[in-house]
Order: sequence, then structure tokens, then C-alpha cells
Amino acid sequence: MKEAWIRRAIELAVENVRSSRGGPFGAVVIKDDRLLATGVNLVTTAKDPSAHAEIVAIRAACQALGTFELQGCEIYCSCEPCPMCLGALYWARLSACYYACTRDEAAEAGFDDKFIYSEIALPPAQRGVPGYHVDAGNRLEPFREWSASASKVLY
Amino acid sequence: MKEAWIRRAIELAVENVRSSRGGPFGAVVIKDDRLLATGVNLVTTAKDPSAHAEIVAIRAACQALGTFELQGCEIYCSCEPCPMCLGALYWARLSACYYACTRDEAAEAGFDDKFIYSEIALPPAQRGVPGYHVDAGNRLEPFREWSASASKVLY
Repeated sequence: MKEAWIRRAIELAVENVRSSRGGPFGAVVIKDDRLLATGVNLVTTAKDPSAHAEIVAIRAACQALGTFELQGCEIYCSCEPCPMCLGALYWARLSACYYACTRDEAAEAGFDDKFIYSEIALPPAQRGVPGYHVDAGNRLEPFREWSASASKVLY
Repeated sequence: MKEAWIRRAIELAVENVRSSRGGPFGAVVIKDDRLLATGVNLVTTAKDPSAHAEIVAIRAACQALGTFELQGCEIYCSCEPCPMCLGALYWARLSACYYACTRDEAAEAGFDDKFIYSEIALPPAQRGVPGYHVDAGNRLEPFREWSASASKVLY
């Protein structure tokens, strides 16, 4: 862990609010102790609810490397990743995450991260955004097609 | 719930494998009983680990409406959303989610969704992608800046 990177993530978050680009969040992706990519929250300006700092940084890092995974890279975040971003950390195969503010501090500032963590633990139909399983007879067809595909790229 | 939309999501997933564009997943966003946007998994071709069908569909729906939220819209998915996509459903303020395959069926097909659900419940430092809280003294500065900002756009 390098304090310089967590300071950079916090600086990015402050600058992002001052420039009215989006919410108070910043992140940096580090590879071999060097800055690979940065990200800030761009939800309202990019009109993309998934444009959290971590996901913006992960996308930029993947573009920089020309890959869809970031093995061996670490992410430093101004705040604990929300469940969406935590999931993205796994799909990106990042090695570790360092964060400054906690989900409790984000909740005090008016953000839903902690609420969404509590929702994930509920059975889908009982959530605020309810999820309903539809027993479609052909639902496994995409997975069968995937299994049989000779040209698939595993991820 | 309309079976036609879940069938469309499954068709998109099958077509996506056949055309070698990405993984076996599809989704559609519905507003006022009309198709607003579609999405397929584009992780490997877009080189973006966040480009799951649901997030691709949410991004397209927001672009179509020129908004960063999708109140009153529903999403139909070929498979239960992973934690990343479930988080995105909340940030997009979707009303409901209908899905065909379950996380167990996705696991049998080789996908990590169920594993990531189990990881989220662990204390951050014990996860496969470990998370470490860094007690940076100025960590609340972004939230203070946000609270004081007169030009912020809440989301």
C-alpha cells in the first residue's frame, strides 16, 4: 500500500466536485507501482449510472492495456466500493483494493452504497428493486450454445 | 411480466454467442410496455469487464432517454444479474427485474456470479479480492466539498 495513491484518489474526488463533473469519488489503477489509469464519478455528466469512479478507472485501464482483465493490478479508491464496483473488481481480476472512506461515511454523505449492500442479502423478490425468476423453458439455451461454441473467448 | 420480453433476452443471448460478440447473456429495458433498449455481453470484444448485458442495456436506455436514471422502467435478463449488475439496477432506479437462468445455473456454466455473491458477505480483508481500509486523515474532504457545493447534481 502506498499512501501517495490513496491521496491521489482523494484529490481526484475533490477536483471532481469542484469542476462539477460528478459525485465526490475518485480512483486510480496501479500496475507495477505505476499509475495506469484514473477515474472519477461521471454519472450525471455522462448520463450513465454505472460511471462510478472505480468502473471508469477499470475501463480506462483496460483500454490502456488492450485487455479485458487487470491481473496483478491494484485499485485505490477515495471510498469503499459499492456492490456494483466491488463486482467489477472481481470481473476485472484485480489483486487488491485500498479505500479511504467507508460505506458508513458514504451513507452519512447521502449515498446508497450501504443500503445496496443490505439489499443484496435479501431474497430477490423482497428487495426494493424486486427480482423475479421466470421459469422459461428454453432458458438454458444460451449456456448450451456457449458450451458448444468453438470460437468463444473465456473471461 | 411479459413472456415476450424474457424470450427476447434469451434470443439476444443465443445470438450473441453465435456471432462471437461475447458471453451468453442478453437483457432488454422496457418502458411503458415498449422496448427501450437491448444489451448483450460485450466484455471480450469491447475489452470492458463491466460490459455485461444488463449494464450495456442500462447505458443504452439512459442514452435513449438522455437521463441517468430509469424510474418506471423494468429490465428482463436471460440470467439473474450478478452483484455488479444488481448494483447497477439500484443506481439506475429500475422498478423491477425479471430473469430466466439462476446464479446456480450460471455457476454450472462456468460463470462467477454465485461466487461473487458469496464473497460480498465476507469482511473486506478476507475476500479473494481483499479490501483494505486506509485511515487517510483528509478522507472526508470530498464529502465536505460535495455538501458545500451549490452546483452539484444529486443522483
